[in-house]
Amino acid sequence: MNVVRRLYDLSGADEGVRFSPYCWRVKLAMAHKNLPFETVPWHFTDKAAIAFSGQTKVPVLVDGDTVLHESETIAEYLEDHYANEPSLFGDGPQRALTRFIKHWAEDTLHPAIGRLVVPDIFALIRAQDQPYFRETREKMFGLTIEALAAKRAEFEPVLKMVLNPLRRTLTMQPFISGAGPAYADHIVFGALQWGRKTSAKPLLEGEDVILEWMARLLETYGIG
Amino acid sequence: MNVVRRLYDLSGADEGVRFSPYCWRVKLAMAHKNLPFETVPWHFTDKAAIAFSGQTKVPVLVDGDTVLHESETIAEYLEDHYANEPSLFGDGPQRALTRFIKHWAEDTLHPAIGRLVVPDIFALIRAQDQPYFRETREKMFGLTIEALAAKRAEFEPVLKMVLNPLRRTLTMQPFISGAGPAYADHIVFGALQWGRKTSAKPLLEGEDVILEWMARLLETYGIG
Repeated sequence: MNVVRRLYDLSGADEGVRFSPYCWRVKLAMAHKNLPFETVPWHFTDKAAIAFSGQTKVPVLVDGDTVLHESETIAEYLEDHYANEPSLFGDGPQRALTRFIKHWAEDTLHPAIGRLVVPDIFALIRAQDQPYFRETREKMFGLTIEALAAKRAEFEPVLKMVLNPLRRTLTMQPFISGAGPAYADHIVFGALQWGRKTSAKPLLEGEDVILEWMARLLETYGIG
Repeated sequence: MNVVRRLYDLSGADEGVRFSPYCWRVKLAMAHKNLPFETVPWHFTDKAAIAFSGQTKVPVLVDGDTVLHESETIAEYLEDHYANEPSLFGDGPQRALTRFIKHWAEDTLHPAIGRLVVPDIFALIRAQDQPYFRETREKMFGLTIEALAAKRAEFEPVLKMVLNPLRRTLTMQPFISGAGPAYADHIVFGALQWGRKTSAKPLLEGEDVILEWMARLLETYGIG
């Protein structure tokens, strides 16, 4: 009998829309480790569904008898527990440099994307999730959802600028981690996929090496 | 007889002030490779002094009979030519991730520091170098040196924000590249050393993991 792996995966009202950057990290890390898994669509206020884990947010991963939460803990667990599968982090220097890229993604890329798509996410989630989402995101960004929407044209060039180092890098090599993808790619992909799945207006368009890299990464893992 | 290595190194009017971020990369890379070298102070308009190299800017490195220019070309040369010495770039993934950090430093950190210190550099260089410096930097930043100086208070919080990913990373590991420094550290150090050598007001102060890392890096290489 195969081990059942179950990921609680943040979802829009339309359960085909899976947009959490942290859940995407986990999905790619499991694909990298050649681990089959199922996802359970989860909404912001479905607190009861994951109460068994002691958590109130996803990603929550159930791997057989093991219950895990937070993308970072999950990645470390997968790396150690499935040590015979391809490595997520590589050797010491690769892991150290990946940590810088994680912090760059979280401190720079996430806010630049988040303030663009929060109004769009608000429109994509269930009505019963909207009050929670409004309250937490307005506090996070210090602006109302409507004020964020009104500033969209001002935020767009900032994202463009933030992406410059990534774009330059991807003109020189197929993946952030070199010849093949690894956890640094998963982290940055997660952020951009969050934007792509939710933005009412494409964040990236035309012939863009970043879009090409995103397609290449999904293709590598056989994700549709 | 030992090979003579000579680096033309950008200098202030006071030749003790060596501030080019790209020259710092080369000096650290040579220290990493255990290569002794001499520096020749060079000023922005000393074009005749490096005419032999066909270049008009530094770094220019003379290694025996070989004349090299541009920090990137020099680093690649050092890596290949002194392959038995410690590696600057490491394996494929480390080299690929280092490239992202290089682009982050050049696209994000350099502009954030540059617009703060350009007015201070103007005051530190020789009078005969000032017209060249003014013309090129005002074009680069789209503002006069005086306008940049007037906006200093506005630029300072941006640098603080830009440094967040670096600061978080250095709370978790001794060097950007992990347990020991490598070329990713040299690149980011070069940018911050440029700021430190020229800013009239400290860019980093107090107990800061970034300052601790800078000291640790210089100590590792036995640089005063």
